[in-house]
Amino acid sequence: MPKEIYLDNAATSKVSASVIEALSKAMQNNYANPSSLHSKGLAAEKILKKCRANLAERLKIKAEEIIFTSGGTESNNLALRGIINQHSQRGKHLITSQIEHSSVYELMLQLEDEGWEVDYLEVNKKGIVKINDLKNLIREDTVLVSIMHVNNELGSIQPIKKISEIIKQNNPLTFFHVDGVQAFGKIFADLTELKVDLYSISGHKFHAPKGIGALFLKKGIALKPLFYGGGQERALRPGTENTAAIAGLNRALAEITALNKDNPFNAKLNKKKNYFLKKLKTIKEIKINSPKNSAPHIINFSLKNIKGETMVHALAEEGIYLSTSSACTSKNKYSRVLKACGFSEQRNQGALRISLSEQIKQSDIDKVISKIKEKIDFLKII
Amino acid sequence: MPKEIYLDNAATSKVSASVIEALSKAMQNNYANPSSLHSKGLAAEKILKKCRANLAERLKIKAEEIIFTSGGTESNNLALRGIINQHSQRGKHLITSQIEHSSVYELMLQLEDEGWEVDYLEVNKKGIVKINDLKNLIREDTVLVSIMHVNNELGSIQPIKKISEIIKQNNPLTFFHVDGVQAFGKIFADLTELKVDLYSISGHKFHAPKGIGALFLKKGIALKPLFYGGGQERALRPGTENTAAIAGLNRALAEITALNKDNPFNAKLNKKKNYFLKKLKTIKEIKINSPKNSAPHIINFSLKNIKGETMVHALAEEGIYLSTSSACTSKNKYSRVLKACGFSEQRNQGALRISLSEQIKQSDIDKVISKIKEKIDFLKII
Repeated sequence: MPKEIYLDNAATSKVSASVIEALSKAMQNNYANPSSLHSKGLAAEKILKKCRANLAERLKIKAEEIIFTSGGTESNNLALRGIINQHSQRGKHLITSQIEHSSVYELMLQLEDEGWEVDYLEVNKKGIVKINDLKNLIREDTVLVSIMHVNNELGSIQPIKKISEIIKQNNPLTFFHVDGVQAFGKIFADLTELKVDLYSISGHKFHAPKGIGALFLKKGIALKPLFYGGGQERALRPGTENTAAIAGLNRALAEITALNKDNPFNAKLNKKKNYFLKKLKTIKEIKINSPKNSAPHIINFSLKNIKGETMVHALAEEGIYLSTSSACTSKNKYSRVLKACGFSEQRNQGALRISLSEQIKQSDIDKVISKIKEKIDFLKII
Repeated sequence: MPKEIYLDNAATSKVSASVIEALSKAMQNNYANPSSLHSKGLAAEKILKKCRANLAERLKIKAEEIIFTSGGTESNNLALRGIINQHSQRGKHLITSQIEHSSVYELMLQLEDEGWEVDYLEVNKKGIVKINDLKNLIREDTVLVSIMHVNNELGSIQPIKKISEIIKQNNPLTFFHVDGVQAFGKIFADLTELKVDLYSISGHKFHAPKGIGALFLKKGIALKPLFYGGGQERALRPGTENTAAIAGLNRALAEITALNKDNPFNAKLNKKKNYFLKKLKTIKEIKINSPKNSAPHIINFSLKNIKGETMVHALAEEGIYLSTSSACTSKNKYSRVLKACGFSEQRNQGALRISLSEQIKQSDIDKVISKIKEKIDFLKII
């Protein structure tokens, strides 16, 4: 088997050896239940405290504004259900976009079935929501607006600050939730400056373990929990805390922070992306779908007359792993996101997504480019 | 620090070195998203398949009847909400017991707030639900009965088979959910024989990692999911599957199975328990609260004139870790469970729970007994 080149980091990323070490150490030494009265329970609780403090520092929020969850899907579901179940007396109207991740989009469709009125903001060809429309859509009974920070297929960065201003100007009571799953670790949000009320994070997108995530909930906002039980996470997310995964998340966070320091943008990734992009543009059968100034880890492009899925399998034979669209919608025929952006059906059929990690080397990129060319030449013939 | 003796396994258990190894290996080699189209995604999906098959074999059910969750609290919440949200047209009545884990009990209290009528079955002094009452409580509009298999504080084993028969005889449409969190690994249920409809499991109670659990859902029963999203777990529990934790769970399951083979009862634990019990009974200041024939890992007892919490801290200084009641209710003053069983307030104040693991040696037990005696003598004076 050839050397593995993993380019599907937006689906999930590989945890580093030091994250595995942190996780294993917590399992060996701090395995007690943080809710236990004895000193071993307290020691486990310290892991939570430390990670909560570090996550809060990175997002420029307070430690008590973080709720640990099992991941991005739960964070998004808790945010939306939690707000609307608690504040439904304010109205029955919600706003989201046409290009949200399925954990927001599918939930919104479900909420429509349950009697909510949902407006789905259109996007332009760059995958940016039409913010002028937003102004007209906000009503007195709009309980919540949910817009993702970075789109998981195209990498488009939404103008979160501007959106938050429009929302609060038109209805100061409307809550603003941002799905930050694809942004965190690539674009570091200052949540206090952004004026968002809820922000979702998933560990396994930035080299932390799967099964751990977080939801930022601005202090003072009441939220109905999805689970009832032992009162953990201020009773907003009961269940024995996943201390080992949280120790891993803390380690992954430290690594990402060390890489980026005070830079709000992951410059290391961005450099790799630009190199990749430059090389891709030399292939005449390829058209880039991602907009300029997109997130530093995602490149979406289309092949001419070759199906994306065919190329995924052809490259996998060479140990190169990428995807057509989102893993969470990979069973669907074509990308809902690209369609919403106005790309043709043909362009959609040929779409591929490369999502980078910090570990990718220039030589890996060169190899991928040469393999893509090779496969295009081969697949064109058959 | 003296050698650690961990006796709080009902709160959470320590994962073994081989479980950490299985988990680490999955993180290193099978880190892809199981929903990804490429071969690395398929390899990750195989982990799920393997674990699902093994879990199904152990519970004597079909592999497709297992839904992976983030743990016991989620399994219980998904079971209850999932059934009542889907089948509310059948009625508004629920039955549970007074001694359920907080993830069932607190949810039931919440459901009362939401307009459901809930009956809480009384228990006798042995912590066994009064099944004669059950017969009278079941109504035409009883949607679900939820009873735990093994109580987490006393270790009482509920007569699940008998309960299921009473339910189905009186209303064949009433669903039966069993919280099997404290039972699994200690008492192996044959779910097909037991005629339960839903059964909850938590990994971290039997040396698998925290953050992973499962819900058995009998084939053909419709359930409303708690989360919406990428369609994982037949859309009943979306979110990227926690493959590494599932690999760990699979390993822990293999170890527990090897220990018990075809024995439905964990005999190794039971032997240790009986030895412990014999020794405890020699201490005149101690009264045993757990009933005869309780689960093989839990011993609940009370100290005379010494508060349970005081003893927890005193023993922790010696590296011995046990608990007063459930970790999930450790912040409450006294045990709701003991109170429901009719124990006096004084008996409740002095209550302690020992919960064993297979790793405890006879010499550990001897040491604990001698330390308990020592501490009783010391605490009696002050």
